[in-house]
Amino acid sequence: MLLPALLLFSFFCISQDINNIQMPELVKNQARKIIRIPDFSGYKVLKCDFHMHTIFSDGIVWPTVRVDEAWAEGLDAIAITDHIENNPSKKFVGGDDNSSYEIALPHAKQKNLILIRAGEITRKMPPGHFNALFLSDVNKLDTSNFMDAFIEAGKQGAFIIWNHPGWKAQQPDTCKWWEIHTELLNKGLLHGVEVFNEMEYYPIALDWCDIRGLAYTAASDIHDISATTYNLEKHHRPMTLVLTEELSERGIKDALFAKRTIAWFGDFLAGKEEHLKAFFMASVSAKLFEENNRGQVYSLKNDSDIPFTLKAPDGYKISLPANSEIIATIPQNTVSNFEVANLLIGSHKKLNIGFPFKQ
Amino acid sequence: MLLPALLLFSFFCISQDINNIQMPELVKNQARKIIRIPDFSGYKVLKCDFHMHTIFSDGIVWPTVRVDEAWAEGLDAIAITDHIENNPSKKFVGGDDNSSYEIALPHAKQKNLILIRAGEITRKMPPGHFNALFLSDVNKLDTSNFMDAFIEAGKQGAFIIWNHPGWKAQQPDTCKWWEIHTELLNKGLLHGVEVFNEMEYYPIALDWCDIRGLAYTAASDIHDISATTYNLEKHHRPMTLVLTEELSERGIKDALFAKRTIAWFGDFLAGKEEHLKAFFMASVSAKLFEENNRGQVYSLKNDSDIPFTLKAPDGYKISLPANSEIIATIPQNTVSNFEVANLLIGSHKKLNIGFPFKQ
Amino acid sequence: MLLPALLLFSFFCISQDINNIQMPELVKNQARKIIRIPDFSGYKVLKCDFHMHTIFSDGIVWPTVRVDEAWAEGLDAIAITDHIENNPSKKFVGGDDNSSYEIALPHAKQKNLILIRAGEITRKMPPGHFNALFLSDVNKLDTSNFMDAFIEAGKQGAFIIWNHPGWKAQQPDTCKWWEIHTELLNKGLLHGVEVFNEMEYYPIALDWCDIRGLAYTAASDIHDISATTYNLEKHHRPMTLVLTEELSERGIKDALFAKRTIAWFGDFLAGKEEHLKAFFMASVSAKLFEENNRGQVYSLKNDSDIPFTLKAPDGYKISLPANSEIIATIPQNTVSNFEVANLLIGSHKKLNIGFPFKQ
Amino acid sequence: MLLPALLLFSFFCISQDINNIQMPELVKNQARKIIRIPDFSGYKVLKCDFHMHTIFSDGIVWPTVRVDEAWAEGLDAIAITDHIENNPSKKFVGGDDNSSYEIALPHAKQKNLILIRAGEITRKMPPGHFNALFLSDVNKLDTSNFMDAFIEAGKQGAFIIWNHPGWKAQQPDTCKWWEIHTELLNKGLLHGVEVFNEMEYYPIALDWCDIRGLAYTAASDIHDISATTYNLEKHHRPMTLVLTEELSERGIKDALFAKRTIAWFGDFLAGKEEHLKAFFMASVSAKLFEENNRGQVYSLKNDSDIPFTLKAPDGYKISLPANSEIIATIPQNTVSNFEVANLLIGSHKKLNIGFPFKQ
Repeated sequence: MLLPALLLFSFFCISQDINNIQMPELVKNQARKIIRIPDFSGYKVLKCDFHMHTIFSDGIVWPTVRVDEAWAEGLDAIAITDHIENNPSKKFVGGDDNSSYEIALPHAKQKNLILIRAGEITRKMPPGHFNALFLSDVNKLDTSNFMDAFIEAGKQGAFIIWNHPGWKAQQPDTCKWWEIHTELLNKGLLHGVEVFNEMEYYPIALDWCDIRGLAYTAASDIHDISATTYNLEKHHRPMTLVLTEELSERGIKDALFAKRTIAWFGDFLAGKEEHLKAFFMASVSAKLFEENNRGQVYSLKNDSDIPFTLKAPDGYKISLPANSEIIATIPQNTVSNFEVANLLIGSHKKLNIGFPFKQ
Repeated sequence: MLLPALLLFSFFCISQDINNIQMPELVKNQARKIIRIPDFSGYKVLKCDFHMHTIFSDGIVWPTVRVDEAWAEGLDAIAITDHIENNPSKKFVGGDDNSSYEIALPHAKQKNLILIRAGEITRKMPPGHFNALFLSDVNKLDTSNFMDAFIEAGKQGAFIIWNHPGWKAQQPDTCKWWEIHTELLNKGLLHGVEVFNEMEYYPIALDWCDIRGLAYTAASDIHDISATTYNLEKHHRPMTLVLTEELSERGIKDALFAKRTIAWFGDFLAGKEEHLKAFFMASVSAKLFEENNRGQVYSLKNDSDIPFTLKAPDGYKISLPANSEIIATIPQNTVSNFEVANLLIGSHKKLNIGFPFKQ
Repeated sequence: MLLPALLLFSFFCISQDINNIQMPELVKNQARKIIRIPDFSGYKVLKCDFHMHTIFSDGIVWPTVRVDEAWAEGLDAIAITDHIENNPSKKFVGGDDNSSYEIALPHAKQKNLILIRAGEITRKMPPGHFNALFLSDVNKLDTSNFMDAFIEAGKQGAFIIWNHPGWKAQQPDTCKWWEIHTELLNKGLLHGVEVFNEMEYYPIALDWCDIRGLAYTAASDIHDISATTYNLEKHHRPMTLVLTEELSERGIKDALFAKRTIAWFGDFLAGKEEHLKAFFMASVSAKLFEENNRGQVYSLKNDSDIPFTLKAPDGYKISLPANSEIIATIPQNTVSNFEVANLLIGSHKKLNIGFPFKQ
Repeated sequence: MLLPALLLFSFFCISQDINNIQMPELVKNQARKIIRIPDFSGYKVLKCDFHMHTIFSDGIVWPTVRVDEAWAEGLDAIAITDHIENNPSKKFVGGDDNSSYEIALPHAKQKNLILIRAGEITRKMPPGHFNALFLSDVNKLDTSNFMDAFIEAGKQGAFIIWNHPGWKAQQPDTCKWWEIHTELLNKGLLHGVEVFNEMEYYPIALDWCDIRGLAYTAASDIHDISATTYNLEKHHRPMTLVLTEELSERGIKDALFAKRTIAWFGDFLAGKEEHLKAFFMASVSAKLFEENNRGQVYSLKNDSDIPFTLKAPDGYKISLPANSEIIATIPQNTVSNFEVANLLIGSHKKLNIGFPFKQ
């Protein structure tokens, strides 16, 4: 109800020009959002989405759109992962498995966004779908036998992620780890797994990360338009936070192989205990400012875009919204640690943090 | 700050499933907005955008995207108007001048959206760019001589709109009406003009509509993504309101040739006096509920998505937001009519309406 | 990200005045929201909140604030219900049990809002707290024996509502109906019950309405500021929809005694089957536009501010957002009726509606 | 359109309890927003509003409301400045000139908000209205002669601000500095001026600060509810940024007398050149990442809640939204400095900053 007056007002000011009046207030600013996630433990936390499609497979946008979307949403790096085997999927669209990368690359450079050459190995279950990142030539993965594609990816030094393991189209009643996945893992041809894809979450995959040492990842797998799929005003697309030593493709590759990743989807973060703890400590601070007969009164400040829900063993609960401060009276001598309900390590394992918060 | 608790809560409820947890709350509803613009004068007011592009010219989306966008934004009809002469404009994209229509049509039918076969005649100034709507074969307009394209469009029964007449790339310092436009008009090959395109407004074009009888139109000319170009949460893309006798392509065609159109851009409506007046009367109602020594106290209710700013000759001003009611004390015996500052007839001509509002 | 440019622009336009520059764009418009709830069954649906406090009991605002809040939020009528027995509750505040009404009344008249004289009988459980509406003198209800207050309210023709029956401060583990409530009901001194208060819901109270014939009501019981308590941008305060024959205090009183009410809280409506059904039919329309091998394709349009969730016996589910249209393919011959999950009649009884929707 | 599904879902999960279902998702979180304004030059930047009213003068809320509002909006300190001379202004409200402070103080302590004892000297022009901050007993300023009130304020060590100097009720056609103001200044009884009050801006008052050494201040002067007056979702109330050496009342007092203040209203900041420059440098960073034939390509990052508009002498313009990053190609060798259009020093004097940005 504020804008109308402004728009009219603009008009009155400039109505002398009868040829061409620019009204930039009617279109959105071409700006990039700053995601508020603190760097920690000496790492730079990069926001990455390693799974998405264009018209060069079954997506519906030109490759440059993926760069523009990611840049505006505050991401640092993306991989376009068009399906390798069924290209071109569309009547009237030509090109090969490298085309989407090659078209998007100059645009990514203009936006200072890191673009990783990649492709999606797309097979029936088992083994399912896999993204191979950091390829040098995607075309060479277009093989009839799926293992040949993995071997070629391995030769090219790829980081390989198992996509949407519990996708109902492939595993309708379960989210099963097959023998072939053990084999790929043992051969060094499987490094990460999507614990979240688009809008679905596979809790058991957390345990694979926790126990088998896969990297925790989350991805949009976007085929459609990001802005009409996700509610970007309030939320964000699912993404992988990568804890890098430098802001570069090299930095990301090193971090991925070192399994320094956190999957971010909705208000959940899934990762290794040490990473989640350090992230929490970097985001939240507590300041004691009063003691009374009900307990110690703290001001708790959350400097990140991620809200936290804390639960003490005795049921005492704190909800700490994003980018906010709250006042909490902690009952004396009873609360010595909290479970952080949205920081996930395994399917039944969440971060526990001592109180007052300490590393 | 409301959602976090909810998301966490959802999670607790369903955490027993470790294979696949759907989180539909993280994606947007596939729903169509209802635009609040009342029907009036016995006409059904259709919301139309007759100018947009896809990858079959210099746009960056697959044709079905234009259908999805328009449907979600509450439009009733669109025309995809890829540039005719330089097709295909993109490496790797084939097809011909009918391809974008033919690809989008089945999708439009599934969404119950009217799709009009069209193309953009794209020439240097003069004569400039023109959309030809209701074509039967766009390919036939791909001629070397521009007049041949117009004649062919005429043969196919096209409604022809002059696009962005004051576009600085073609008319940097002016918005000139050339002799060729008079010729086209006289030959029955020019029927409407864009008084607004994307984010620019050409006030002088209002006078061409008012005096020369062209249809007032506004269009997005969208090449990019609509949701990242326009602020759809608060605003809308520019569009043409068409006053039809029936919700059909036939109804739209008849209304266009009868020049029953209103251009809607930002909070402005541009059209014929009779249409603007009827629209205003259908949107706004006034109820007197008190008289005091300062004047008559009215409750003014605006049941439309368009805010109005009213100005009396003595300077008294009323701002009436969209979808709202206000209380206004009208000074006794002084205010007998208002100018509606955002209802435009000509470059210097706005709607005047008597008070109390009456037809 | 749109506004900044505008604000700056405004400034450039008017910077010649160095004494006083008005910047109305920095404050909110004084406008009244239109709540989109259709009238139906020949009734005018009034939006009412019959429970709220001011500084004349334990609230924190001057009485006129309650009028301004309600008007801006689109309500038609309110009752200020300050606690009767402990007035004045605040050091420095005088007055009597009629003061808040008398202070607010002239302001309500200026805003064309209906203000009902009322008070809250505030007693320990049993019987608990009760609002008496349509009083002529609230002071007379300030009695030592609670039954005397009820009898006086009855003499004054009051409509009496049992407030927050399951409030944990009074009924920590239950929401019990006591003998005294049967007695009050039998004596004609109990007419309605809050099935929802502020942010809590008492499902069992729905059954009291359904079986014992009490009026379904919901209320804010606001002590604080409405705009900082409820998320008014997206939601609404809890309220009672009253199905009146005329927009007047008389109309409301008649409707209340005839039990023509619906409680609205969050996205839930609770009321009699006939009212909920008529409301649903007035809000939702279905248009068949295609049949294919998957079923009949309908466009479903919801013209109200209330979203609906429909569930067929076979598990097929439809989510129909507020002020929106969706496309739904109804499986042929299988779906003949839906349960509307958010239209509540009793604690375990929801509205069932045949498909295609019919009265 | 996201919430409905969630709300329904919550309901299904917990529907077994028929007595009392809490729905906290229907009310707002009690949380404090973090205002993103960087500390700089070794100072802590406190967000303060030194002008507001309660029911103890002509405001409409209980004093604690002012604390809650300010805390939630992210402020660090406030002064309640009820009118001194006409207390109590309301029938039924008693107390004296210290009451609002004394009622609010315990509440402020619980919220860890700094509350300053103050009062508004309210006189006809000249001299007008003045806030006296840091008083020890407001009652003593209730004198018949206005100069006695100033002298008493001086004795109590008050910091004195001239409020809304161009208020049309007192100076309808001008914003005049009277002889009495020179006298007050010379006597050390005038230290600051409101360059902005509620929704009006007095450009000439900037020059008084710039030349006469008054502190730049902005204030809400709120009588009504803050949340219904200002659009807090997108904007903020007008306030004074105080550059303190410590977060305490003492720190604020020292900073005020040292004139280390910036007035913040809408998207404008008004203050001394050195403060504005240091603030800008702390908020904005530029990173060169490419050079091409059109110029140098920079990524410009704005880490604050304040958008900036930069204008080069040759007309080249940059709009840098709040909390965002943009990419700007700076034409080679032509742009060596920018005027920051929304950083104000005097009525015709804005901050100039060299490019690349340097202190």
